[in-house]
Amino acid sequence: MPFLTPVPDISATRPAFCGILANTLLSIVPGISGAGPSPEATLLTPALDAELILQGAITSVPAKPNTPTGCPTPAVITRAMMDLVGITPVFVNAGLARPPAVPCIDVYGAAGNDPRTSDAVPLAAALYERGKLVGQYLSGASDLLVLGESVPGGTTTALCVLRALGYPARVSSSFVDNPVPLKEEICKAALARLPAGSAGDPLAVVRCTGDPMMPVAAGITAGYSGTLILAGGTQMLAVCAILKALGVRLPPVATTCYVRDDRSANAPDLAARIGVQVLYVDPGFEDAGHAGLARYCLGEVKEGMGAGGAMALAYLQGHSPAAIREKIAGTVGAYS
Amino acid sequence: MPFLTPVPDISATRPAFCGILANTLLSIVPGISGAGPSPEATLLTPALDAELILQGAITSVPAKPNTPTGCPTPAVITRAMMDLVGITPVFVNAGLARPPAVPCIDVYGAAGNDPRTSDAVPLAAALYERGKLVGQYLSGASDLLVLGESVPGGTTTALCVLRALGYPARVSSSFVDNPVPLKEEICKAALARLPAGSAGDPLAVVRCTGDPMMPVAAGITAGYSGTLILAGGTQMLAVCAILKALGVRLPPVATTCYVRDDRSANAPDLAARIGVQVLYVDPGFEDAGHAGLARYCLGEVKEGMGAGGAMALAYLQGHSPAAIREKIAGTVGAYS
Repeated sequence: MPFLTPVPDISATRPAFCGILANTLLSIVPGISGAGPSPEATLLTPALDAELILQGAITSVPAKPNTPTGCPTPAVITRAMMDLVGITPVFVNAGLARPPAVPCIDVYGAAGNDPRTSDAVPLAAALYERGKLVGQYLSGASDLLVLGESVPGGTTTALCVLRALGYPARVSSSFVDNPVPLKEEICKAALARLPAGSAGDPLAVVRCTGDPMMPVAAGITAGYSGTLILAGGTQMLAVCAILKALGVRLPPVATTCYVRDDRSANAPDLAARIGVQVLYVDPGFEDAGHAGLARYCLGEVKEGMGAGGAMALAYLQGHSPAAIREKIAGTVGAYS
Repeated sequence: MPFLTPVPDISATRPAFCGILANTLLSIVPGISGAGPSPEATLLTPALDAELILQGAITSVPAKPNTPTGCPTPAVITRAMMDLVGITPVFVNAGLARPPAVPCIDVYGAAGNDPRTSDAVPLAAALYERGKLVGQYLSGASDLLVLGESVPGGTTTALCVLRALGYPARVSSSFVDNPVPLKEEICKAALARLPAGSAGDPLAVVRCTGDPMMPVAAGITAGYSGTLILAGGTQMLAVCAILKALGVRLPPVATTCYVRDDRSANAPDLAARIGVQVLYVDPGFEDAGHAGLARYCLGEVKEGMGAGGAMALAYLQGHSPAAIREKIAGTVGAYS
């Protein structure tokens, strides 16, 4: 299989990677998120991912960068790619339950609330404006920006936002068995709170039913002047739906073939409806010689912390699929 | 008078400006700081400076960017210079009493405590490490970094740290009449708390008697790989004293001639003792046609938010003294 499909016409002399970190309190609903050893612990995952990528190790708490079943966190893949292409990434704290132990560009948001019971992101409009300022700053620092995210529970807020904006969406999951009935139940309850006519006001939709990553990602896209790639699966497609409704440019999305091939979701159909180009990376983890990576091919984890986009970036910067696989396997091995 | 003395051999294709924001609770001691309309209000000044520079206006609270006597805040000068050279600056929140309304790189510190009664910066060592990570990130984004600061009350913490490290320091002030006896009294009380032998451990000195800007500025200097200019007066000389004691390179300092000419302080002597080169900017405000700017020449405000370094940067980027003065006067006029 080709490594990247399609191969876009993108070249960059000063590429950068930015990861947006956020929480939604939906991630502590049992069964919603596989991004952590327990529902409560999913709140820590974005900040620990950032620690791992920036420092090479998680030092603030005793935690392993693996799922309970031994699958490496996608942040390890992102770390490996940053090392390979020689980029120091930057993280944006869009709204975390607890402060991280590494520096982040902070937009002074807050963790997203449960959209079934209250407005999820009361600051949505302000976070969009602050995202624009971040995008303007990053414009001076790079000519290509790969923008990833880490939001446990974020596929469920993506489902809410996509449905509220009128798309027949089915979203992906970090679980092999996507908890579709639970997500549908939450989505139904969240959408029942949506004021009539909200579909025409994407930031109102985010305020009611989204998560803090969304307005910040949309704002960065609006404020950034260079070439942009949104790195993520159905969560980034929700950001694209917001951008389209706002009348902002639609950058391409890069994600893994595991998201494309998730039959419980409809990423390719959704992308076509929104009108966004998706670049799919097939990293060939079945041949990487690591049991945990091979589980990605069985539908576990699939994507996260911009791992798909980070691999696409390494490929676009001239690294061979074999060198990319080798670097990832070596990095994963060092944490095992 | 020449605009910049001496003119360093510095050229850059990708210059950047970073402003470090912090509070010390010393600024609410009446008479210590002129950086705000009241002692309590000085706690807000760094974040409002950042708002002014990034947005062109203070929108989060009703506040004027002037001293009570009508002197423009130095942040207006920095804003004018960013506009002139076409740079979007970035701010680092090293420890503020309240969260700012604009995005900052946050190192998750806290406002500095009163060094007379408790450790001023308990996280000093961690902030130094996090500063290094910020410096590493900024290395990929620029080849010249002008690093400024905004810390009301910071000349008093600078006095404490310089004295603790063995220098016969006298520090500058934003007041025309430097409150030297009050600063000496605070310094004496703070140094009485210093454990014996601390002079050999600069981060212990910062922990006991400094402010959060200091370890972050030192860390950024240690982590940054390009050309660096520390933009500030006696506060940046305190950072240089820390760097020297840590064995880290000593970058040049850029500040205004108003700091050099402050007879209540000894900036040139101090710089010579530390062994750091200081670039002095004489912006010629007596001829700028603005009464508030002319007050700088009488010794009011003098420096702040890297204003001296920002003017030096504009000059090094090829802008004439006349163009620099005109831009500042025009920007100040727009806020009057």
